[in-house]
Amino acid sequence: MRRWNGWGDDTIDMPLGAGAQAFLAGRLGQGTRPQDASFEEACARLAPGRLAPHPLVDASPGARLLHALGQSLPDWLRLRHGRIDAAPDGVAYPESAEQVRELLAFAKEQGADVIPYGGGTSVAGHLGVHQTSRPTLSLDMRRMRALVWLDRESQLATFGAGVTGPDLEAQLRAHGYTLGHFPQSFEYSTLGGWIVTRSSGQQSLRYGRIEQLFAGGRVETPGGTLAIPTFPASSAGIDLREMVLGSEGRLGIVTEATVRVSRLPGHEAFHAVFFPDWERALAAVRELAQARLPLSMLRLSNAIETTTMLTLAGHARLVRLLGGWLALRGCGEGKCMLMIGASGAKAQAVPALRAALGIARRYRGVHAGRGLGERWRRNRYRSVYLRNAAWAQGYAIDTVETAVDWPRVTQAMEGIEGAARGALEAMGEKVHAYTHLSHLYPQGASVYSTFVFRLAGNYEADLARWRRLKDSVSTAIVAAGGTISHQHGVGVDHAPWLAAEKGEMGLGAMGALFRHFDPDGRMNPGKLVAP
Amino acid sequence: MRRWNGWGDDTIDMPLGAGAQAFLAGRLGQGTRPQDASFEEACARLAPGRLAPHPLVDASPGARLLHALGQSLPDWLRLRHGRIDAAPDGVAYPESAEQVRELLAFAKEQGADVIPYGGGTSVAGHLGVHQTSRPTLSLDMRRMRALVWLDRESQLATFGAGVTGPDLEAQLRAHGYTLGHFPQSFEYSTLGGWIVTRSSGQQSLRYGRIEQLFAGGRVETPGGTLAIPTFPASSAGIDLREMVLGSEGRLGIVTEATVRVSRLPGHEAFHAVFFPDWERALAAVRELAQARLPLSMLRLSNAIETTTMLTLAGHARLVRLLGGWLALRGCGEGKCMLMIGASGAKAQAVPALRAALGIARRYRGVHAGRGLGERWRRNRYRSVYLRNAAWAQGYAIDTVETAVDWPRVTQAMEGIEGAARGALEAMGEKVHAYTHLSHLYPQGASVYSTFVFRLAGNYEADLARWRRLKDSVSTAIVAAGGTISHQHGVGVDHAPWLAAEKGEMGLGAMGALFRHFDPDGRMNPGKLVAP
Repeated sequence: MRRWNGWGDDTIDMPLGAGAQAFLAGRLGQGTRPQDASFEEACARLAPGRLAPHPLVDASPGARLLHALGQSLPDWLRLRHGRIDAAPDGVAYPESAEQVRELLAFAKEQGADVIPYGGGTSVAGHLGVHQTSRPTLSLDMRRMRALVWLDRESQLATFGAGVTGPDLEAQLRAHGYTLGHFPQSFEYSTLGGWIVTRSSGQQSLRYGRIEQLFAGGRVETPGGTLAIPTFPASSAGIDLREMVLGSEGRLGIVTEATVRVSRLPGHEAFHAVFFPDWERALAAVRELAQARLPLSMLRLSNAIETTTMLTLAGHARLVRLLGGWLALRGCGEGKCMLMIGASGAKAQAVPALRAALGIARRYRGVHAGRGLGERWRRNRYRSVYLRNAAWAQGYAIDTVETAVDWPRVTQAMEGIEGAARGALEAMGEKVHAYTHLSHLYPQGASVYSTFVFRLAGNYEADLARWRRLKDSVSTAIVAAGGTISHQHGVGVDHAPWLAAEKGEMGLGAMGALFRHFDPDGRMNPGKLVAP
Repeated sequence: MRRWNGWGDDTIDMPLGAGAQAFLAGRLGQGTRPQDASFEEACARLAPGRLAPHPLVDASPGARLLHALGQSLPDWLRLRHGRIDAAPDGVAYPESAEQVRELLAFAKEQGADVIPYGGGTSVAGHLGVHQTSRPTLSLDMRRMRALVWLDRESQLATFGAGVTGPDLEAQLRAHGYTLGHFPQSFEYSTLGGWIVTRSSGQQSLRYGRIEQLFAGGRVETPGGTLAIPTFPASSAGIDLREMVLGSEGRLGIVTEATVRVSRLPGHEAFHAVFFPDWERALAAVRELAQARLPLSMLRLSNAIETTTMLTLAGHARLVRLLGGWLALRGCGEGKCMLMIGASGAKAQAVPALRAALGIARRYRGVHAGRGLGERWRRNRYRSVYLRNAAWAQGYAIDTVETAVDWPRVTQAMEGIEGAARGALEAMGEKVHAYTHLSHLYPQGASVYSTFVFRLAGNYEADLARWRRLKDSVSTAIVAAGGTISHQHGVGVDHAPWLAAEKGEMGLGAMGALFRHFDPDGRMNPGKLVAP
């Protein structure tokens, strides 16, 4: 069963080994195992729901609690400490666009806000109740999950927008197709959620971001239905898809989406390459990205992440052997690991990989074969479970990510890590920070940093630590000229930094769109653009 | 010097040979050579300008006339017949964003509309004066043409938005780069124009449409400056670039744009392949597009276009020899020509071309080598001059284009050509119609049809012929599920058909954006979305 106050399925654990525990204790001090609130305690604290009864609305405390929050660290703190101040007053599971329209009408009649709920995996605070002065209705889209239509000729597939990653891929695989959109949250996140948060998958190098995959669809808004037909391309005015992408629920409910699919790749392999240092690794990945080779993934870890990942992997002897082998080949202390994915027709994927390894060699890259790559592939959705394991040992894990043009990549990485390391100094706490470039473009890269710090053991103190850390690293992102998010979206957590990149005119334009589709301002208010 | 009432430079002529003249006369009847009005006559008919004097504004009749219209067929008719009912009251050539702001303030003070003017190549009526009850100021961007900044590391170049295609490429070539955006209008059209009309170049298969090339920039709007920073990608809310792309001057003046450039290709070649019939050709190009080979161009002419192009090319003996050679190889009467471009590093381009020819062979495609491809490359911007030559013989040439998903491609082509052929029947006139697929996508293709019909010799009758033809083919586009434009934009000519794809909610959303940036509605009113 899915955990109510942590990541993923409760039958899956990725416990930290003794080596990993010692590694964290050595860097941050011993953690204190926290006391989590129970589901029943948290339910009991909820104020009664205020919506009138409706046959489609479940107002039970359990349903309301399960839709109250997402997976951001402040959301976790609220869940773990049982401090859920507000939850939606009811949850509906519509099965059709007609029911969505009915529920929007019901919300209007009740003077209620509406929060669209996909997989509940937001790490930016997209799902919390905005203000408790009005009731809130959560629309859980899980029942709208069918493959409605597959056009093999155009390689287009239309799904109910509530379909999750595995469900979508399984329905496509039966016909020999894939969408190829694999964000870290893949196992729970939904097509509709990917669209409204402008999500990016791990293999976007081949398949594209969700912006490139989203071909059209239907959105039920308080003002009416927005139907977006599919065209291969168009110059007919402003692209309506781009009003939906990144709208974070502010203009309506995506009920159905048509996506561009591909034939299942005949060949797929992930290879690891190590570089002696960051400078060489960075130069190599820039050349790789700008060579536009038909690869499916490029993902570069900096030296601290490389060491951390190899340590947390837990096979001390193997890692030692690998380290010795790499050191002999010039990759010692500061070594950085690059993961290269090649997917597609063998006749294209194999030469692309060969060309990539050739470029890597010119920067003293050492090819370590497929073993680590295979391991990465097998565990690609498992590493999130480390959050649970670290929590159990008294540590919090959080991440931020941005994207910058090439000249700013190192500066952004160092700025973010430096800000994180110093953020809790005044509280006498350390932060272990490490980074990878998760997506590479000819223009630049995304910079994805992870932070581990000790829990204080009480809600206020933990939230204060997170707040200070988040403020520091977000300020560092803006200072480095980065976008406040490359793949997670804005929600409430990133909203204070949005003006830096959108400006007043840009924020106002987004507001004008929201008002057009949602004149009463009831769709996910408070998210993305503060009111 | 540039022609004031026709296409291009007045030292360049592409006269129709005897064979071409006979071809058209056989299909449409003999043309009557028209009597064109002179520049002086047209100037003399202009009403006096109504703007107060301003040091940056040229109110001379010559400047006003040269900015009155674009290159759509109704624009041509007005120019050729000397029937320019309305022209801007003054023309300014700003040299900086500051001057643009000053001119917007002047327009406000004068209660004037503002029409941004790039290269004047619009074929959809983007440049005409909307209503004569208010004065109009034309802002000609030609002086803002400098390469402001080149970031080699990120392959980004920032230009003044008024830079034309050749000027932009020359400035980049000096540094070893190319933008790779080559629309048919390349010689005169501008970067800013490409952006606001969502232009597509002939080699977009490699370089992308302008949507993919436009990384950021600055727009001066009546409401203030919209500055869009560059990121490789972002999930931070709605993409502001997408509000500018396709906005057709309705929200402001693009003063500066940053584009994604590439290193000049080491290798480039264009090859011709002939298929025995449309069905095989279509199946082949669909497979080619979906194989995602790193090619730079795929362009398929249907049988009528293939014959028409070979005939108009004028080398009767060569064409006969080619025809005989192809017939022996199974490509007779219904043969269709595919042009394949491969550009880039030789190590990628050559194998891609080889793979493409392999796919073509499976559909009985006959490789005719590089000769025709070279010829196409040399004449890529010359074929537009046929409009002038045909006019001189008493024929009008017009085009429409759309894009549809694969299952609708043939239906769209036949619908458009059929509608065109029947459009002037009631007037006792024939229309020669032919088509190519100009841009191929995994999802579908653009369908680009050309029409030739006889001129009546007077303005009203010619306009009536065009109106009937345009209505018929536009209705056919909508009936086939196509977008009303794949690469030309909307302007006034396509605006009546826009609601079919945007819906009321979509049109309203565009209007809400325009009002936000331009509360008084003075920016290019009447274009794109009718008021």
